[in-house]
Amino acid sequence: MEISVPAPADFHVHLRQGSLSELVTPHVRKGGVFTAYVMPNLKPPITNTDQALTYKAQLEAIDPNVKYLMTLYLSPELTPEEIRKAKQAGIAGVKSYPRGVTTNSDSGIESYEVYYPVFKAMEENDMVLNLHGEVPSDASKNIHILNAEPQFLPHLDTLHKAFPKLRIVLEHATTRAAVEAVKACGPTVACTITPHHLALTVDDWAGQSWNYCKPVAKYPDDREALRSVIKEGHPRFFLGSDSAPHPPHTKSTSTPACGCAAGIYTSPILLPLVAHILESFDALDKLEGYVSTFGRKFYKEENDAGSRVTLKRNSEGQSNLVEESFTSNGESVVPFWAGKALNWSIV
Amino acid sequence: MEISVPAPADFHVHLRQGSLSELVTPHVRKGGVFTAYVMPNLKPPITNTDQALTYKAQLEAIDPNVKYLMTLYLSPELTPEEIRKAKQAGIAGVKSYPRGVTTNSDSGIESYEVYYPVFKAMEENDMVLNLHGEVPSDASKNIHILNAEPQFLPHLDTLHKAFPKLRIVLEHATTRAAVEAVKACGPTVACTITPHHLALTVDDWAGQSWNYCKPVAKYPDDREALRSVIKEGHPRFFLGSDSAPHPPHTKSTSTPACGCAAGIYTSPILLPLVAHILESFDALDKLEGYVSTFGRKFYKEENDAGSRVTLKRNSEGQSNLVEESFTSNGESVVPFWAGKALNWSIV
Repeated sequence: MEISVPAPADFHVHLRQGSLSELVTPHVRKGGVFTAYVMPNLKPPITNTDQALTYKAQLEAIDPNVKYLMTLYLSPELTPEEIRKAKQAGIAGVKSYPRGVTTNSDSGIESYEVYYPVFKAMEENDMVLNLHGEVPSDASKNIHILNAEPQFLPHLDTLHKAFPKLRIVLEHATTRAAVEAVKACGPTVACTITPHHLALTVDDWAGQSWNYCKPVAKYPDDREALRSVIKEGHPRFFLGSDSAPHPPHTKSTSTPACGCAAGIYTSPILLPLVAHILESFDALDKLEGYVSTFGRKFYKEENDAGSRVTLKRNSEGQSNLVEESFTSNGESVVPFWAGKALNWSIV
Repeated sequence: MEISVPAPADFHVHLRQGSLSELVTPHVRKGGVFTAYVMPNLKPPITNTDQALTYKAQLEAIDPNVKYLMTLYLSPELTPEEIRKAKQAGIAGVKSYPRGVTTNSDSGIESYEVYYPVFKAMEENDMVLNLHGEVPSDASKNIHILNAEPQFLPHLDTLHKAFPKLRIVLEHATTRAAVEAVKACGPTVACTITPHHLALTVDDWAGQSWNYCKPVAKYPDDREALRSVIKEGHPRFFLGSDSAPHPPHTKSTSTPACGCAAGIYTSPILLPLVAHILESFDALDKLEGYVSTFGRKFYKEENDAGSRVTLKRNSEGQSNLVEESFTSNGESVVPFWAGKALNWSIV
C-alpha cells in the first residue's frame, strides 16, 4: 500500500545553529518535508531582518533543497518599521514566547498591549503571528504546566478581536480547550498540532524525561480532542512538528540536580511517524490535509514545483526501526520513537 | 533554637531486602524515627505471618534500635484465618496496592468485595487496612496519573461504610479531594502525608525523574490543601514518609527506553526535612502532632520508653547539606534534597 501527498510542509521546526544545525537541517528533507517554518529562538534570538536573512543563508548552505520560511522573535526591539522591512525581505512571521507574555508587565494579562503597534504593522503587511500559548507557572494562582495553556487562551481571544485580520497561529495545541478556542475564532486564526501530542499523554512523560516537552502532553481526553480535529479534517489545524533537537546529556537526568531540556525530536522520521500515528486512530485519509494542503493554504505557500512524497506501508515482517541516535561532527541527537518500529517508510 | 518531640514514628516506609536493606534500614534512626511501619512489597511480597516475622527478624538484626510494625500484602492468598494468626503474632496491618484493585475484576469498582471476609476478620481483630489510593490509568475513561487518586476515593467511602469499625489509612494523600474525603469519614479513617508531597508540585517532576513518585505530586492547590490540614493540626493526618530507595540507575533516564522507578528516598534526613518544610509554611508548631502523637494515637502505639528527639535550627552561615548519596556494600541510593541545605539538624 502506498500514499502520495503533495510536498509536505512543517510549520514549526527548530534548526539550531553551528554544528548541531549541520546535523539536523538535512533531516528536514529526510523526514519528507519540503518547506520548513523556522523558529527564531537562537542564542542570541533572531530579532531583526538582517539576522534572519543571515540565518536563512546558513540553512540554505547546509541544505538548499528545502524552502525556509523565516521568523522573528517578538521582543521590545521589534518596531513597526522593522516589520515593514522584514515583509519586504520575505520574512513570514513573528514568534511570541511565554517570556514575552510577562515582559513589561506584572500580571501578564495586559502585557501584549505594548506590542500592539507591531501587531498593527503585521496585520497591515499580512505577516503571521505565532503564539507559544502558555502562561508562566505561578503556584500562588494555581497555575502549573498542566493548565498553562488553557490559562493563556483569553490572550488569543483578545488579540484576535483587536486584530481580526491578523493571521495568528496558536502553536502546538495540547488541550481540548485550545482546540475549541481556535475553532471559535474566525478564518484568520489557525493552529499547529505536533505528531507527538497526538501520541502521548501525561502518563508517558511521568518519570521519562525523553518524552518531556513544552507544552507537556496532557490528559487522554485532550489527546482525543486533538485526534478528533485531525480526523474531522478541519482546515485550520495542520502540521507543525515543533521538532526540537537537544544534546542527549541535556535530555537524560543522571542526577537530581539535572534540569532536563524540554523538547522532542521528530524531523528525520516526520512523515512516516505522522502516517503511523494517524493510522493508529483511523485518520490516514486526512494525511494530505494535515501535512500539506491546510497549512500551505493558510500560509499562502503554494506547492510551486508540484513536488510530492510517497509513503509505503511496510509489509508484515518488514520493519522501519527508528534509529537510536543521529551523530555527526561530535553532535548527537536521539529521535522520538528511537528503536521502535514505524509502519510506514518514505519511498 | 531547638525543638524536642516525643519519639517520631514513620507510618509508611520501604526497607527492602538484602544488601539494599542493610544500607537503608539504619537510616530510619538516623532520620530521627523510633517506630517504622514497614511495607510488604518485597519480591516475593510478604503475604503471610511467617514471612512477616522472618522479615522483622532480618530488620532487627540490621538495626535493633527501631520498633518495626509489620504488614501483609493484600492478595487472594490472604484468609480470615491468616488474619487471626497475624494478629496473634503482632502484625499491625494489611496493605492494598493498586494491582489489588483490579484483581478478579474487570472494572475495578466491585473488586474489593472479594476481600470482604478478610476485612471483616481485620475489623474484628482490630488490624489496620492501608490503602494505596489510586486506580490504574485507563485512557478510554480519561483516567491518568493526575486523577487516579480522586477516582479511587469512592472505594474509600464504600469500604468505610461497609466496615465502619475497621481502621483504614489512606496512604500518601496528594489531592484536596483526598483530604476532604478523609475528613468526611469517621474517626476510624486516617491519612498519611509525605514530606515530599508537602514540597513538590507537578512542575517539579516534569522532566526530572528523581522527583517522580506514585502518587505523583499534584497541582499547587492540592499541595495547599495538604499543607492546610497539617497546619490545622488535624489529628487524623500524620507522617508516613513513603521513603522508597531505588538504585540510582533506575531513577535516571539515560535513554528513551528507560522506565524510571517511582519513589523518593527521605529516611536518612526525615526529621530535619520535615522541620524544614513545615517551617516553610509556618507549621512548625504542628511538628509534634504530625510526626509523633497523631499517628501513634491512631495506631495505638504508645511511646513506651518516653524517648524524644531534639532538632536545632542551624544558625546563619551554618548549613546542613544533604548528602549526594549513601553507599555501602555495592549498594547506593540518592536522597531527596541531595546537595541542598536544610535549616534543621538532629542534635
